[in-house]
Amino acid sequence: MPELRQDPIVGRWVIISTERGKRPSDFGQSVMESQAGFCPFCPGNEEKTPPEVFAVRDPKSEQNGEGWHVRVVSNKFPALEIEGDLDRRAEGIYDKMNGVGAHEVVIESPDHDRELSQLSVEQINLILSAYRARMVDLARDKRFRYIQLFKNHGEAAGASLEHSHAQLVATPIVPRRILEELAGYEQHFRMKERCIYCDIIDQEISIGNRVVAENSDYISIAPFASRFPFETWILPRRHQSNFEQSFTGNYFSLARMLKETLMRINLALNNPPYNFVLHTAPCNDWRGPKQLHWHFEIMPKLTRVAGFEWGTGFYINPTPPEDAAAYLREVPIDPEEFALPHSNGQ
Amino acid sequence: MPELRQDPIVGRWVIISTERGKRPSDFGQSVMESQAGFCPFCPGNEEKTPPEVFAVRDPKSEQNGEGWHVRVVSNKFPALEIEGDLDRRAEGIYDKMNGVGAHEVVIESPDHDRELSQLSVEQINLILSAYRARMVDLARDKRFRYIQLFKNHGEAAGASLEHSHAQLVATPIVPRRILEELAGYEQHFRMKERCIYCDIIDQEISIGNRVVAENSDYISIAPFASRFPFETWILPRRHQSNFEQSFTGNYFSLARMLKETLMRINLALNNPPYNFVLHTAPCNDWRGPKQLHWHFEIMPKLTRVAGFEWGTGFYINPTPPEDAAAYLREVPIDPEEFALPHSNGQ
Repeated sequence: MPELRQDPIVGRWVIISTERGKRPSDFGQSVMESQAGFCPFCPGNEEKTPPEVFAVRDPKSEQNGEGWHVRVVSNKFPALEIEGDLDRRAEGIYDKMNGVGAHEVVIESPDHDRELSQLSVEQINLILSAYRARMVDLARDKRFRYIQLFKNHGEAAGASLEHSHAQLVATPIVPRRILEELAGYEQHFRMKERCIYCDIIDQEISIGNRVVAENSDYISIAPFASRFPFETWILPRRHQSNFEQSFTGNYFSLARMLKETLMRINLALNNPPYNFVLHTAPCNDWRGPKQLHWHFEIMPKLTRVAGFEWGTGFYINPTPPEDAAAYLREVPIDPEEFALPHSNGQ
Repeated sequence: MPELRQDPIVGRWVIISTERGKRPSDFGQSVMESQAGFCPFCPGNEEKTPPEVFAVRDPKSEQNGEGWHVRVVSNKFPALEIEGDLDRRAEGIYDKMNGVGAHEVVIESPDHDRELSQLSVEQINLILSAYRARMVDLARDKRFRYIQLFKNHGEAAGASLEHSHAQLVATPIVPRRILEELAGYEQHFRMKERCIYCDIIDQEISIGNRVVAENSDYISIAPFASRFPFETWILPRRHQSNFEQSFTGNYFSLARMLKETLMRINLALNNPPYNFVLHTAPCNDWRGPKQLHWHFEIMPKLTRVAGFEWGTGFYINPTPPEDAAAYLREVPIDPEEFALPHSNGQ
């Protein structure tokens, strides 16, 4: 069972793999190289993953067989384990608990070679719907306080398999980053009775120089205090606390915005490695539901985080977000690429 | 002039290079490759760096010429600029100020090929004394609130030159990470009237399973909630808030502990890239002097920080610190290697 340990000074939590701990000789090898040629996420290899917990499938296909469009499985090497109690306890002045949680993989397409932005709007809609379905289901487990959706694309961004996939980790505590956003949200709301993200969206639309793309429902911006060059956030224009509650029958509009934004990043930066994360309100919080304004944060990995950043928590960003947004806007893209082929206008 | 910008939600500061902003085509090239063969830090190339602000030199050598043992120069590409006022101001709902600060490079040896742990205890003593001399001098500038010393070793840890060097960045605000440590320190002190780091040291010495090395003045441990595999902290055993105040005529004892710890890491892990940072009390804080317990944090770069970490602020550490400390303790090292050749026992 992994262990959740808290730093006694700053309160930061870490997940320690206590069972199959890595020895010095386990480091250094490229994970991707180590299994070149074989992909457990490709159709036909379904038995190489844990059984599926969710899938979008052709009508006559069978569970854990071929014929799926999106497939969600438990992570074969989970950071947290699903069985057991938290068992919070002390070790002298330290605090720890069992590493209880869930860790799932969303295999985003049967096609090994297509990156998320190369998939159709219809396919991305299925993927976003799968993210949501798993978040709703995981939140039914009252031990979990937060469901973190994230995607690592490219080895430099931490991906260990190149076949397009995202991951979900359900954690038994609300993560620090989310607590910070909730606190910032609350502070602003107490003063102004307005959502700070809504205020940011208003200001960005009226100035326009940090806007990457927009449609009637979503906006994509290079945030004012971007940590990384070409960092881009996608937010719903109308206030919405939870991603799970954002479903309106389909995710076509969000799929189009996500595809357009990633296409612009990939074309401008020659398919960089990137991470993206979803920030949304916590689930099952005993302090009652907390407000946030859900959004995606896309972080291309172009620079290295080094001693100064680790020491201070400051970031050095060599590309002003105003320049980044201008470069991304200028990328020539045919709007047909992220249009819905058979729709009437939307 | 770079710009310091604050994220309006979580309060995080970033340094934005507004003048020579990097374009998309500037990313991707390895910095080390781009200047292979020539080293501006080697003796004979002194005119390729900005003029020195401090040096330990042979008696008859001339400033900015050869004959130095440790040499400190301004960074040719500073993250912050030394001239000017902060000029704090708003941009709508956002806050920013001028990127005023100092950024210096400590060239740790004339020898291009020796990594810090391969230098003699005498040489490391000179290096530590140079760190201190620059910190004391920079703190005289009342605009600065913190002096961050850090070292990036190896390209994967963000080093752009392989010749052994450290860096100092003086910032006009106390960094977030330090504020968090100060807050944790204060909270513990208010409750117990004891230093939390002293309590940690006591517990670690009495248990012993996370101790990497110790001498009469310093201890080197794998912290209980290590973020990274083989993360190692060096702390003075007796309470001391400021690194600058730790000077007792020489740094032989600290030099020995630093050399031994880095040797153990390098031998166990085959010379990994690493970052180290010094955490110490802030300077010129208008809220009066704040207490801390200074220490070095050494972070070998063996794993990648990816979407889960960026999204949550959690870390996943695949090597329990108890195992890491055991591996590091077991490395066969001849104590003569970090002895003082001409000392009497010390």
